[in-house]
This record gives sequence, structure tokens and C-alpha cells, in this order.
Amino acid sequence: MEEVLAPLREAVKQQGDLVQQLKEQGSSELNKAVAELKARKKTLEAKELSLQPKDEVVDRAKMEDTLKRRFFYDQAFAIYGGVSGLYDFGPVGCALKNNILQTWRQHFIQEEQILEIDCTMLTPEPVLKTSGHVDKFADYMVKDSKTGECFRADHLLKAHLKKLMSDEKCPTEKAAEMDDVITQMDNYSQQDLADLFVKYNVKSPSTGNDLTPPVSFNLMFQTSIGPGGNMPGYLRPETAQGMFLNFKRLLEFNQGKLPFGAAQIGNSFRNEISPRSGLIRVREFTMAEIEHFVDPNDKVHPKFSNVANLEIMLFSSKAQTSGQSAQIMRLGDAVEQGVINNSVLGYFIGRIYMYLLKVGLSKDKVRFRQHMENEMAHYACDCWDAESLTSYGWIEIVGCADRSCYDLSCHSRATRVPLVAEKPLKEPISFEKPIVNVTQFEANKAAIGKEYKKDAKLILDYLSVCDECYISDREKLLSEKGEFTIETEGKTFTLTKDMVSVKRFQKTLHVEEIIPNVIEPSFGIGRIMYSIFEHSFRIREGDEQRTYFSFPAPVSPYKCAILPLSPNQEFMPFIHQLSEELTRNGVSHKTDNSSGSIGRRYARADEIGVAFGITIDFDTVNKMPHTATLRDRDSMRQIRAEVDELPAVVRDLATGVLTWEEVEKKFPIFEGQETNRKDE
Amino acid sequence: MEEVLAPLREAVKQQGDLVQQLKEQGSSELNKAVAELKARKKTLEAKELSLQPKDEVVDRAKMEDTLKRRFFYDQAFAIYGGVSGLYDFGPVGCALKNNILQTWRQHFIQEEQILEIDCTMLTPEPVLKTSGHVDKFADYMVKDSKTGECFRADHLLKAHLKKLMSDEKCPTEKAAEMDDVITQMDNYSQQDLADLFVKYNVKSPSTGNDLTPPVSFNLMFQTSIGPGGNMPGYLRPETAQGMFLNFKRLLEFNQGKLPFGAAQIGNSFRNEISPRSGLIRVREFTMAEIEHFVDPNDKVHPKFSNVANLEIMLFSSKAQTSGQSAQIMRLGDAVEQGVINNSVLGYFIGRIYMYLLKVGLSKDKVRFRQHMENEMAHYACDCWDAESLTSYGWIEIVGCADRSCYDLSCHSRATRVPLVAEKPLKEPISFEKPIVNVTQFEANKAAIGKEYKKDAKLILDYLSVCDECYISDREKLLSEKGEFTIETEGKTFTLTKDMVSVKRFQKTLHVEEIIPNVIEPSFGIGRIMYSIFEHSFRIREGDEQRTYFSFPAPVSPYKCAILPLSPNQEFMPFIHQLSEELTRNGVSHKTDNSSGSIGRRYARADEIGVAFGITIDFDTVNKMPHTATLRDRDSMRQIRAEVDELPAVVRDLATGVLTWEEVEKKFPIFEGQETNRKDE
Repeated sequence: MEEVLAPLREAVKQQGDLVQQLKEQGSSELNKAVAELKARKKTLEAKELSLQPKDEVVDRAKMEDTLKRRFFYDQAFAIYGGVSGLYDFGPVGCALKNNILQTWRQHFIQEEQILEIDCTMLTPEPVLKTSGHVDKFADYMVKDSKTGECFRADHLLKAHLKKLMSDEKCPTEKAAEMDDVITQMDNYSQQDLADLFVKYNVKSPSTGNDLTPPVSFNLMFQTSIGPGGNMPGYLRPETAQGMFLNFKRLLEFNQGKLPFGAAQIGNSFRNEISPRSGLIRVREFTMAEIEHFVDPNDKVHPKFSNVANLEIMLFSSKAQTSGQSAQIMRLGDAVEQGVINNSVLGYFIGRIYMYLLKVGLSKDKVRFRQHMENEMAHYACDCWDAESLTSYGWIEIVGCADRSCYDLSCHSRATRVPLVAEKPLKEPISFEKPIVNVTQFEANKAAIGKEYKKDAKLILDYLSVCDECYISDREKLLSEKGEFTIETEGKTFTLTKDMVSVKRFQKTLHVEEIIPNVIEPSFGIGRIMYSIFEHSFRIREGDEQRTYFSFPAPVSPYKCAILPLSPNQEFMPFIHQLSEELTRNGVSHKTDNSSGSIGRRYARADEIGVAFGITIDFDTVNKMPHTATLRDRDSMRQIRAEVDELPAVVRDLATGVLTWEEVEKKFPIFEGQETNRKDE
Repeated sequence: MEEVLAPLREAVKQQGDLVQQLKEQGSSELNKAVAELKARKKTLEAKELSLQPKDEVVDRAKMEDTLKRRFFYDQAFAIYGGVSGLYDFGPVGCALKNNILQTWRQHFIQEEQILEIDCTMLTPEPVLKTSGHVDKFADYMVKDSKTGECFRADHLLKAHLKKLMSDEKCPTEKAAEMDDVITQMDNYSQQDLADLFVKYNVKSPSTGNDLTPPVSFNLMFQTSIGPGGNMPGYLRPETAQGMFLNFKRLLEFNQGKLPFGAAQIGNSFRNEISPRSGLIRVREFTMAEIEHFVDPNDKVHPKFSNVANLEIMLFSSKAQTSGQSAQIMRLGDAVEQGVINNSVLGYFIGRIYMYLLKVGLSKDKVRFRQHMENEMAHYACDCWDAESLTSYGWIEIVGCADRSCYDLSCHSRATRVPLVAEKPLKEPISFEKPIVNVTQFEANKAAIGKEYKKDAKLILDYLSVCDECYISDREKLLSEKGEFTIETEGKTFTLTKDMVSVKRFQKTLHVEEIIPNVIEPSFGIGRIMYSIFEHSFRIREGDEQRTYFSFPAPVSPYKCAILPLSPNQEFMPFIHQLSEELTRNGVSHKTDNSSGSIGRRYARADEIGVAFGITIDFDTVNKMPHTATLRDRDSMRQIRAEVDELPAVVRDLATGVLTWEEVEKKFPIFEGQETNRKDE
């Protein structure tokens, strides 16, 4: 296998070295080289995946048939023709989702004492203007000039070129050129794309009609808040903004102290141009996000040692640019060696990993991939995605970014509300005051007033709340270009050297104001759920028709099935007793007293991943004390225990307090019932 | 008190009798009389409320100060100026809300084995066209002709008239006329309102500018799904539609059997023209809705006897129209006497009542009010609102309606997908086939084809899926007016006697197709939460400044506070041990090791309704075995127990398995610590 991959690895490494070199030179060829690097990485990864043993790849069609047939989830509004990218979760999917979220709350909110909040999805435009979503959260699209059908420009162009290239008559150099276009796809501007559509004469694939030139399409759902029509709003594209906007209240709730985490679980929206791939790319989805606010000078997590010994598959930026595979590494070593930027980020990577295994992902199908420097948002200082291996390849399921002070700074500048924490400075024994470095804009009020008249106050307010990092960036622009622009209250102002300068000085203080940095673990719940489906879908040995989901008991949609041997009335009192007791113990369960053999009904329960099954048979009725059998879904092994004690046993199995192995040690293995119906 | 109310009661009764009489006569004066009846009821209720003892009314300003200061919830987007009708829940409010919902899941989903589903909020227009929301979910509004400021027409007109009436110079007959207008407010058409605005010369209250004539404003948030701009959609105004649209899948999941319940928890949206009253009327809110599908010929609930002995305050339609008060009644009697239409509805009323008390509402501040015939939606056959008494008066918090087969029929007609269940008919022993009555439209294909050409098929399809109830209604129109209209695929068709008739016949069948009826309990979670706040807000006797919320432990936002006597380092190991053990037991808790006296920190914990508190003192450190105190928030009494056993005790208290009284019997009452810091 490595023999096949070696040349591909080498190709990546060469390109990685080239990128590094171009970066050092500040070359304008950099973007192009990075795109090529990504393309080579992709080829390598595709090859790696194609070489994995066939039996490790899930039978997606078979799995999706079960998911649909047993209504885990299905297309929304189907009786009205359906809407693509919108799905409804049925009873099984909904229960599974609730359990995934409940486990999340226990694992993060409770164990880490995080402050959970619940903000509105409706969001007024200025907030998303500040966050950058109004301007940048967009894809290019083209329209069929007659039918109005829309296509994502890059997808369509790529498909068109692939089709041309597949033509035998396509000359080699032409094919190479098109291959190059595909590689560079992410780098094209609107005009570039427009030119390429003309050059390659792309038409609508459905009708053959002409296409309109590419236009930018914002991916947020827009609406209008209130009746006046003068407050445009959007459905939030992420839950994160709610935590930033409530920062002051949360800090106060935490009695002014850093660090603390805030979290939110809720739906977000993304108006995809043409959604595909089932649950992986949808228009409405549930996220769970944490914003951990931390002193930028103290990015050390006190509990890091709890996760330091985890062995996790890490795919560092360096490994990616040098053609290596992901490597299993001890988390402690990764932080020590600087592979992971700091121990706060490292701690969350460890906790995320533990969570993913807890809800049912396979250890060997989860990795953390570091963003390469050029794919990282410009404000982030390190970013790792948890990825899961599915039949779609490696897909991102959790992002974990160190976003520095970017978000709080932006909102602070836009609203002129300082979003800072106060850090008490210890006074030295000598009674000297502590000294800190201060960076401020120094505004020439006269010059600004002269140029901008009554807007001057707006500008001065804006300049007064800027942080050091932002100021230093603008200072560079001032010295290089002699000016920079600011945006506030929807207006843009150009400030020149004579209007503003930067002042640096030292100040004695008792309290230092700091803008916290933010570590943001962001979970895509639908994608995690889909990964759980793939990682836990099983086929019974020797029976292709019998499939089941081996969900861990704590996330199983139902913990237990109650199955009488037959619809005989004698079994009813035991069904009621068990059902009531299971309810009292908070154990979700499902009674199946339909006709059909017990084996068939077990298969039906297994199919939706019910963790355990209790069968009531004639021994239950005839013998004292009354006993029933308990069956484990994965091993199909059974024990026999008293009806009175079964509910508590199932409860402990369901919460993970007890393992099936322990149950087998405690109770007799069930071999077969001894008595039959009395009148038989 | 009854003396004051007697004439008001008599006034209601007289008007109630008049309404009854007018109804029997089919008088055109009916609507007017009903409005007057409602106005008299309102006057009676207002008087009743004004007579209640003053100390039973919550100090709303004081309570709201706590809610805001401790960030239970607050205005969303405040740093951007805020948006009215949108609120964010902070850590305490969010935890409380989660617990209210978790209790709901246990109480309904688990105990009733209801099928929970999770559907999208984005909803395409045709669905809401069918449900009637596109056409009817609207209020009238007027706009300031210069500033564009919007007002709800009825609210503004009412305020304007009240102001005019309050003028001493207003002649009596003029005042009576205006009073009459206020009474009739709900009956006015758009044109009526327009005329009244002119007649009374209403201007903008903010600017004195002219107002535009009233226009209908739809209360749904509109958006566009996908990039084409050709799929208008809305944010759902209720969660119910998801259950109706998935009916077939749910029925199949339930193996084709009736009855079964489906439920959904999620957000809904309502674009209020000018939202007021805090959490009571908001633009984005969480609902929990159940749709219980039942055979219309079998509206008997097998578990009704479980709730039959509940004594509940019922305010029947009859009591309301005859000026009586709400009465406490045994639920079983109410169903037997026909006060409540059937035992399925009765069962849910009982279960709703139990739920509301469980989450913290006061028994004597909850009542069920029956809709009067003329306020009920035309399709509902009985409807009861659970109402809670707050400082805003009685507010609706849960609706519980028998919606008959209305919703499924509508969607079935609109989509031409039969939404029916099959009911197996028992074959009589004589081997004769069972016989059922069938009602169908008989279409004259030639006549319809002649009139409507290629739309004929559409009409025929539509007619073929109509249910008996709908057919009988149209039959009446046919005989009275000679025609009726249908709407399908956005087109309207008039059908006359020569095109369609109604055919009734008997048919021998093995399986009967029935359209299930729906009982719909619909919970407004925000309003329930607000009611809990008011019903559980307390002030410590003798200390006006010390307030607390007496939330029942299972819904308390935090179950337990861990409070070391002081920030002394010696206490730290015990804090860690307790925190870890509480987490392991799934008990949400909060450590407060800030400086400040223990009393002050207890007060802080009480203020946000933390149910219990553990204090670590020097006896904990100095004595063996290590013990700590446990305090009950409501009684402020304390016991002392071993540190090792406290977490399990708090867990059992939190889930309601154990009561505080039982704890006091088991452990010694704490009188005061005996030892001090060792080096003191």
C-alpha cells in the first residue's frame, strides 16, 4: 500500500516545500501554489481511502434504507413535494438526537461548569454586518436564463470541465489546462468565474439554455423584523454571536472572573444553493457551541493533565504539507512539542475526543486535522477540526479554533461598548504601582472635525475603544499607504496621517483591562449523528437481511424493548408492571406485543438500535418468583432475572453504571424456557 | 365581596341569556351581543381580581429586577440597541427552561409513550396556505404617514377612545358610544376600522401626524428558501403542522394502530406589530405540542381513571355565560356530566394540571377555562385553556383542543394524499361481511370537463379524497345556494348542482378507512416559565431585601450550591470532592468560594432559586468522619451529614425521590460548628 502512495506523498511534499518557499519570498504565486498543494493532498487522501479494505466501508444504500423505512429521519414536507436540504427527525432519530445533546450537556456544561445560554435565532442585520456574514457568507451562483434554475457556479463549472476532459477527443494539453482550472477553483473572483463560463461555453445542464453571469448569493435566510420593513434581519448562521453579545452579562454572572465558558445549543440556518449529501449539508441544522473566554496571557488549562495521556490521531499542518499520514500521538506530547498551540486548546481537543467516543464514534475513524496556515481565518491563531471517516470520506464534525480576541473586538468597535474583563494587578511590596504598556490612537480632533463635521464624534468614539492588535494593524497601513478606513454605523470614513497617529506609553494601574481570547469548540450535531449511524451500522453474521445499530446504551433511542412471547393475555400484567417500573426509573422503552415471532420482533427492535430486550414467557407466568429474560442487542446473549429487579438493572446498563459483562456474572445465562402455556 | 360582584354577575347572566336567545333565532345581532357579553365578563373578572387580598399580588418590579440583575433573561441584542419582543435566556433561565422541558418529556413523552419528532422551522408557503395561516394569521395595522412608525390598529383606537372618554367635557352619550366601539372591537372589518379612524380623527400618538388607513399585516416572518426566489417560505407559527404532515410515517411507525400521540418541542415565531408584556408576548418562543390521534368513534381514554379523582378549578362555558365563578370540580364528574366533551380530552386536562403543579405553579392560581362556542375555532368541538393567575390577570398558558379531523382533512385535500388510518372490522360469525355507511361526492365528469377543461382532473382528484364531514357541509351549501367553491393548487373553482352531487350508500368492507380526530394540548413554555417566576417569588419574612424563588427541586436551575465558610485553602479538597461526586451523580451545582459572609452567599444562591446548599466549615476539616451541613432553601433549616453521603442525598432530593422532611428525620439538625481554624 505504501508503495502505491509513496509517489503521491512525495508530490505533496514537493509542493509543500514550494509553498513554504514562496511564502518566505512573499511571492504573488502563493495562492496558486496553495491550491495545487490542496489538490495533491486530496489526490493522496482519495488514494489512501480507496486502498482501505472493502469490508470496512459501510453499505450506505442498505443503511439509508433502514433509516428511511424506520423513520429515523426523512425529507421534510414530502406530501407537498418536499424541500431539498430540509429533514424531519422521526421518533427514533429525535430520541437519538436528544440523547446526543443530553450527553453533551453532561459532558461539557456540567462537568466543565459552563454557562449555557439560549438566544434568539432571529438576528438583526447590524450584528451580522459586524461579524462579517452579511459581506462574506456567500457563494457564487449562475441561473438558467429561461427557467431561472440556479446552480452553484464552482460545482457546475467543475462538472462541466470533468465532462469535457472525459471526452476521448480532448487534447492532452487542453485537459491539463482544465485540470489546472479545477485545482484553482477556490481562488477565482467573480470576474474570473464569469470569464471561465464564457471561455468554456457552459450551458444549463438541465435545459441547455444560456446561463446568467455568476453573481454572489448570500447564504443567510433574510427576513424582516417588525411591521415597518425597516429592520432587516436574518436567521443566525451560527450560535456563536449570542455568546459574544452577552459577554458582559456572562462575565458579571461569573463575578467578573476569567476564565469561563459559555455555551449554546440550537438551530442555525444556511440557505444552500443546491443542497446534496443528505444530513451532511442541510439548510437548517442543530449546533452546539462553546466559547471559552480566557486571559490571553494565561492560556494554560488547570485540568489538562486529565487528558494528557489520551492517544489521539492528529493530522498536523506539517504532516499535511509534507505528505505524511495522520499520526497517533499522546496529547500531552502534542502540546509540549508545540504541535497544538496551547493547553487550553489541547484540553478541549481531548474532551471533544472523549465525547465523540462516548456517543458511539469508532476510535479508528476519528482524527483531528489542523488547518494549514492559509486555510485558517485570518484572526484565528490555531484551529483543529475533528473529522470522522464516512462513506463520503473524512468529514468535518467539530471545529476547535483559537479565535484570539477577534469577535469581542469587532463588536466592541461596532457598538462602542467595551467588551473587556478587569484583571487585578498585584501591587509590589515596595508600594510602587504596577506598570502596563498602553497603545492608543491619538486623534487630531481639529482635522477630523474639519473633514467629517458632525460625524467626528462617531469617529472619535470608534477610535477610543480599539484594541492593541487592531491599532497595530492600522498603524502599518498608515505608514505604508498613509491612510486607512473604518466602518461604523453603516458609514465608511477614510482617516489619514494628519488625522490620527498611534501613541504608546506606560501607565500605572491597579486594574488592567483585557480583551479575553476565545477558544471555540463548535459541534455540528447532524453530522455527528450521521457519523454515528455509519460507525454503528452492523449486519448480523450469516444473515444479510438482519441489520442493527450498535449505539452505546446512553445514546440508544430506546433503552429497552418489552416483548411478550406472544399476544397472550396472561402476559399483560407483567408488561404493565415492567413498563411502569421502567418509566419510574426514567428508562425509555417500547412495548411490542404485535403478532409475529419473537425472533422477528427482536430483529425489528435491533434494527432501530434498542439496547436491551426483556422477554416475558410462560416461565414468567408459571414460576415463582416471576422471572424474565434480558437480552443484549450486540451479543444477542441473554440472562434470566426476577421481574422486580430488571428495571433497575436496565437503568444501570442504560446510564453506563453497569456493563453487560458484569450483568452476565451476576445472573444466570438464559438457555430456554422450561414450561409452556398451562392449558397446552 | 360577593355583594359587590352580584350586580356584575347578573349583568353577565342577562347578556348570556340574550346571546342564547339570539342564537336560537339565528339573529344577525348575535356577534354584537357576544362582544358585549365578553366585555361584561371582562368587567366582572377585573372586579374579582381587584378584590383579591393585596399581599397575594406579586411585587412585579422587585421580581423583574432580580430576573434582570441575575440574568435569568434579558433583552436580546442590547449592545446593538435591542429588539423588542426578542429575549435571551442567561444561565439560570436556560437551566430552568431545560428542566421544565426535561420534566415535560418525562411526564408526557415517556409516561404516555408519545412519539416525539423534530421538524424544521422553515416551512414552504403551500403548507401554511392550507393551514389557513397565510390568509388569516394577521392583525390590522396603521402607519404614521411621515415617520412610518407602525401601530396595531385595535390597540391604538382603543387607547385613543379611552383618552377621549376620560375628558371631563366628553358628553355622556358620546362616551357611551365610544364604550360601545371598544366593546365591539373584535368584530370590526378593515373598512369598519378605517371609518372609525376617520370618525374619531385618530393621529399618531408619537408625532401627531396623520395615519395611513388600516391594512392587514400577516404575523408570520417571511423568507425565501433556496436561491431562485421562487419558493416563498415562513418561519412556522406553531409546531403542530409537522405532526400532521408526518402522520402517515408516524402511523406506520406505530404499526398502523390508533390511538397514538405525536409531540414536538421547538421554537415558533410571530412577528408582533408592537410586542409588550415581557415574556408573555414575544416574537420567538418555545412551544411543546402534542397531537393525540384517535378514532372519532372511540374517544375513551383507558387511563382516565388515573386522573378522575383530581379536583380542578374549571371555568365552564356555561359558568362564564351565566356570571358564575370558576368551580373546583372532580375531573371524573366533569366528564360524566358532559362539562368536558370526552374522557380523552378529560385525561389530558388532568395530566396537564399535574404537570403544571410539578413544575411549580400554585394550585390555587391555575384554572381551566372552556372556550365559549363563539370563540372556538369553527372546526374544534371542545377547547379548554389552562390559565394561570399573574399580575397581568389570568393568562393562557396551555391550550387543549379537540380539533376533530380538521387538520388532516385539509392537508389531505390540498395534497390529494389520503391521511387516514385503517380500522379492521370484525367479521360476524355468520360470515356475512360487515357493512359501513359511505358518503362520497358524485362528480358529473362531462359537466366539469366542459366548464374547466384541463383543470377537470385536478377537481376530480380533489373531490375523491374529501371526508364525510366536509362533504356534508358542501351538500348544505349546494342545497341552499346551488353551488360551492373549492381551492386547489392555488386555483379556485365554483361547482354547481349539475356538476356534483352527494351519494350515500352502504358498502361491505373488511377494513374501514377513518380520518383520525386530534386532541391537541399545546404548551407555551415561556408563559409557563413566567408564571413559575410569579408563583414562586418570595420575600424572607422581616427582610425586604432578601428574595428567593421557591422552585421545586426538579426544575431548580441549580440543585446545589457548594459554599466554603471562607476562601481558606483547607476547604479546597472538600470542594473538589463534592463537586466531582455531584457531577458523577448528574447533579447540577455551583461553587461560590468568593469572599463575602456565608449569609450573603446563601442569599445570592437563594436569589436564583438554588434548591440546597452544602457548607464546608472547620468541623469538616478538623473532625473525623468529615461532615458538612446541608441547607434547605425554603425553610433555611440545616442538617449535618458525612461528606461522602451528601451527593447521593442531594441527588435524591433533586429528583424528588426524597423529601426534606425525610432528610430531617434521618440526619441530625445542625446547630452550629464546634471547632475553629486549627491555628486560631
